Amino acid sequence: MEADLLYQRVAQHYRSAIRSGLMPAGERMPSVRSLTRLHQVSLSTALQACRRLEDEGLLEARPRSGYFVRPPRRTSIAPAAEPDVRRAPDPAQFVGIHDRVSAFVATGELQPVSFDFGATYAEPGIYPGEALKAAAIRVLRRQPELLVRPVSPAGELALRTAIARRALDGGLHLSPDEITITHGCIEALNVALRAVAQPGDVVAVESPTYFGLLQVLESLGLRALEIPTSPHTGLSIEALELAFETQPGIKAVVASPDFQNPLGCVMPDADKARLVALCERRRVPLIEDDTYGMLGDDDTPLKPLKAWDTTGNVIRCVSLRKTVAPGLRLGWVSGGRLHARIQMLKYAQSRANEALGQLTMAEFLGSSAYDRHVARLRRQIKHQRERVAEAIAAWFPPGTRLSLPRGGMLLWVELPPGCGAHALFEAGMRYGIRTVPGTLFSNTHRYDHFLRISCGYTVTHETEQALRLLGGLCTAK
Amino acid sequence: MEADLLYQRVAQHYRSAIRSGLMPAGERMPSVRSLTRLHQVSLSTALQACRRLEDEGLLEARPRSGYFVRPPRRTSIAPAAEPDVRRAPDPAQFVGIHDRVSAFVATGELQPVSFDFGATYAEPGIYPGEALKAAAIRVLRRQPELLVRPVSPAGELALRTAIARRALDGGLHLSPDEITITHGCIEALNVALRAVAQPGDVVAVESPTYFGLLQVLESLGLRALEIPTSPHTGLSIEALELAFETQPGIKAVVASPDFQNPLGCVMPDADKARLVALCERRRVPLIEDDTYGMLGDDDTPLKPLKAWDTTGNVIRCVSLRKTVAPGLRLGWVSGGRLHARIQMLKYAQSRANEALGQLTMAEFLGSSAYDRHVARLRRQIKHQRERVAEAIAAWFPPGTRLSLPRGGMLLWVELPPGCGAHALFEAGMRYGIRTVPGTLFSNTHRYDHFLRISCGYTVTHETEQALRLLGGLCTAK
Ligand SMILES: Cc1ncc(COP(=O)(O)O)c(C=O)c1O
Ligand SMILES: Cc1ncc(COP(=O)(O)O)c(C=O)c1O
Repeated sequence: MEADLLYQRVAQHYRSAIRSGLMPAGERMPSVRSLTRLHQVSLSTALQACRRLEDEGLLEARPRSGYFVRPPRRTSIAPAAEPDVRRAPDPAQFVGIHDRVSAFVATGELQPVSFDFGATYAEPGIYPGEALKAAAIRVLRRQPELLVRPVSPAGELALRTAIARRALDGGLHLSPDEITITHGCIEALNVALRAVAQPGDVVAVESPTYFGLLQVLESLGLRALEIPTSPHTGLSIEALELAFETQPGIKAVVASPDFQNPLGCVMPDADKARLVALCERRRVPLIEDDTYGMLGDDDTPLKPLKAWDTTGNVIRCVSLRKTVAPGLRLGWVSGGRLHARIQMLKYAQSRANEALGQLTMAEFLGSSAYDRHVARLRRQIKHQRERVAEAIAAWFPPGTRLSLPRGGMLLWVELPPGCGAHALFEAGMRYGIRTVPGTLFSNTHRYDHFLRISCGYTVTHETEQALRLLGGLCTAK
Repeated sequence: MEADLLYQRVAQHYRSAIRSGLMPAGERMPSVRSLTRLHQVSLSTALQACRRLEDEGLLEARPRSGYFVRPPRRTSIAPAAEPDVRRAPDPAQFVGIHDRVSAFVATGELQPVSFDFGATYAEPGIYPGEALKAAAIRVLRRQPELLVRPVSPAGELALRTAIARRALDGGLHLSPDEITITHGCIEALNVALRAVAQPGDVVAVESPTYFGLLQVLESLGLRALEIPTSPHTGLSIEALELAFETQPGIKAVVASPDFQNPLGCVMPDADKARLVALCERRRVPLIEDDTYGMLGDDDTPLKPLKAWDTTGNVIRCVSLRKTVAPGLRLGWVSGGRLHARIQMLKYAQSRANEALGQLTMAEFLGSSAYDRHVARLRRQIKHQRERVAEAIAAWFPPGTRLSLPRGGMLLWVELPPGCGAHALFEAGMRYGIRTVPGTLFSNTHRYDHFLRISCGYTVTHETEQALRLLGGLCTAK
C-alpha cells in the first residue's frame, strides 16, 4: 500500500473513534511510537496521521506530552438567519463611508493590535515569501534593465498566459488577450464600474458587502442598491429580480459569489447560472468580484460566474493578493464585450503595472510550488477558521449566531440583542483585539449588531483567550 | 587653480575660437598631448576640456584621429511662432482621442521601429539600471517578507521622506505627510482631476498639450478648454484671464510649466507667480504636471508652481519615471488643501503602491548616485537634443520652424505649409522612423502640420541620416 494511503487509514481509524465518542475529549492518543507498533507503519506515517487529525481540529498537541483529543465544538450555536428577500430595496448614495472607514482605520492605528481579527489575508508566514523573493531576484538578474526599461502597455504576456492556464481549472477558457492586469482587484472593480456607470447611476450590490466596494461607489458618485443576500447561498436572485422590476435604471450588478466578504457564503452553481442569465436577459452588466474563490476547503475548484457567460456580459475581477502575495498589488480583469473599454480606462488611469511584480508572479503561478502552497493555505485557514468558530461558540453569549463557511477566512457573527458591534469593536481595541464592526458593510443600520472576525492568523491558546475576553465584553455591555 | 576651473579655462579658449570662426568646421583640434603642453595642464584636464566641447556639440571625436570642429548649426531655422492669445477658446469634449492614440500606438506596433523619435524617456542605458537592480535586491534581502506582507496604506515613509528632501532643492517645503505616492504622474493627474471636477465640467489646459492628459479628460467625461500657449514662455496668462472672463465654470487649470510636452517651453518665474495668483484669486484649483522639470540644461533647479502656493490651491503631480526609472511606475501628488480627498481617491482607486519599488526608489533618491545620474542625464540629452535639432535644421525643407528648448527631450517642429504631419508620420513609419504627429496634441486641427520629435536616444550618424530621410519625405509630399 502506498504511504499516503497508509497514513489515511490510520487517521480514519482514530477519526471515527473520536467522532463516535469512543475516544472522549481530553483522552490521550497512543504515542507515535506505539502507533508504529499497533498499525505496522513507519514513524513518519504515524506522525503524518496525527498531524492530519490535528489539522482537522480533532487532536491537539501538548508540548512534551503528545496528542490529546480536543474538546468537541459546541454545536449549539444557531446558524445565521436568512434575510427577508421581499423587503423593498432603497438606492442610497454613500455619504460618509469614507469617514467611517477612516475612523475605523485610525482607531486601529492609535492602539497597538495584538490580535488582528480584522485582516482579510492570512499571516505573512503562510505565504510563499521565500519563493517569491527568489523569483524576483532571478527576474532582476535575468533582465538587468527591467527597472529602467519602459513597461509594456498591455501588461506582461507571461503573467497573462499563466493566469489563463490557471483559469482553465475553474472551467474558464480565456485567452491572454482577454486579460488585463490591474493594481489589485480594487482597481479592476474601479475600471469595471467606470466602464458601465456614470455618476448618479444605481448599482446593485450584495447586502452586506465589502466596504471597499462601497468606498469605490462613493468615490465614483454611484448609488448602491443593497440586495438581500443569504449567509448561506449568497445574493438572492429572487430579490434581484424584484429589484429589476421595481427600480428602473440599474446599471450594473456587483456580486462576489465565492466566500463573499463579509458573509463567507458560496452561491450554488444553479444560482450562479440563474444570475448570469438574469443579468444577460436584462442587459445589465454583471461584475464578478473573485477575491477569495481559491480558498475553499474542498479541492474541487469553484466555477466562477464568468464560466456561465456566453455573451460577454460578465466582467470578471480577480485578486491575487489573498491567495498568493499580499505584498504584490496584483489583480486582473476580463471584461467580456466591454474589455476594450476597460483596457483603455486602465491605461488612462494608471498605465500598465510594473514588470517586476508581474514576472515574479508569473514564475510562481507557472510552477507546481503554487499548487502546493494553495493546498497548504487552504488546510491552514480551514483549521484556523474552525478553531476561531469553536472559540466563539464556546465564549460568546447565548443568542450569538454564526454559520461556518466552507472556505475563506471570514466569520460573520450576529451578536445577541442589545450588544452593539461598534461598542464591542471599541471595547476590544482597548485590549488590542481588532475586529470589524458590521456598520461598515452597509448603508443601512441592518448590521449594527454584526461583527466580522477573520481567522487569517495562527490560532494559539492566547487567540482563544482573546476571543473569550471579547465574548465577555459583549455580555458585559 | 582648481582642476575644474582649469579645464573650463581651456574649454573657453577653444569655444570662443570656434564661435568666432577662427577655427572653422572640419579643422583639427590640437591633440590632447599638445594641449597639456600649450596650456600647462594635466592630460585628464585636457581631455575633460575636449569632452566638454564635444558635449556642447562644438567638437566631434573621430576614431583614431582626435577631435575636429563640427559643422556649425544651421542658424537659419526660424523660431516657433507665438500663438494668438486673443483667439476665443472653445471648450470641447474629446470624442475620439482614445481612438486616435490607439491607432497611433497600433501603427507603431505593426512596423518595426529602428529610430524611435516618439519616446518620452531616454534610452534605458542612460538610467541607473545597475544601481536600482542592486538596491532592489538589497531591499528584498533585508526584508524577506516584503512581497507577502500587506502594503502600508499611506505609502512608504522612506520614499515620501526622500522626496520631501529632494523637493527642498526646488524651493519647496513639503512634509512627507503632504505627499502621496502614485502609479506614475498619470495616476496623480487622475486623482487630482477627480478631486476637483465632475463629468461634464470644463478644465483649462495648454494648447497643444500632452495627449495622455486629453485621454484622462476624455475618460473622466471632462471637457478641455485649450488655452493658447507660447512655445517659449508656456501658458499665456493673458489668454487664461480672458478665458476666465468669457467662459463661466472652469473647474481647474492644468499646466506643465517646465519643459512642457510637446512644446519644451519653460514658464518664466514671473509668469509662474502670476498664474498661481490668478488661479487663487479665481478660486480655481491649479494642477501642476511636473514630468520633465529635472531635465534642464542648467544646474539651477527650476522652481515649481507649488513653490508660490501660499493657500494650498496648487496640486502638484510629479513623475519619477523620466528622470530616474522608466520601468518603475512611480509618481507622487501633493494636493494642498485637497490632499485628504486626493489621498482617499487614490486609496479607493488602487490602494497604496507596492513597497518594493518604493523602497528601491527611496534608496536611490537618498544617495549621491542620484545627483551624479541626473547631471549625466542632463548633459546627455542636451547633447542629443542639439544634434537632432541641427539635423532637422540641416535636412528639413525651408519653412520648417523650431525653437530649441533649454531642457527635456522634446522638439516641436512646425512643418512648412503643405506638409501634413500625419502623412509624414506614416511615411516615416514605413522606414522604421517613429515620430508623433501634432494631431494628437489638441482637439482642434491647429497642429496638424507639427511633429513632435524626441531625442532620448543616442544620436549616431545613422540617426542623423534617418532625420535626413524624414526631411526628404517631407519635401516629397
Ligand atoms: C471582496 C473584496 N474585493 C476586493 C478586495 C480588494 O482586493 P485587492 O487587495 O486585490 O485590491 C478585497 C480586499 O479585501 C475584498 O475583500
Ligand atoms: C506631460 C506628461 N505628463 C504625464 C506623463 C505620465 O507620466 P507617468 O509615466 O509618470 O505616468 C507623461 C508621460 O509621457 C507626460 O509627458
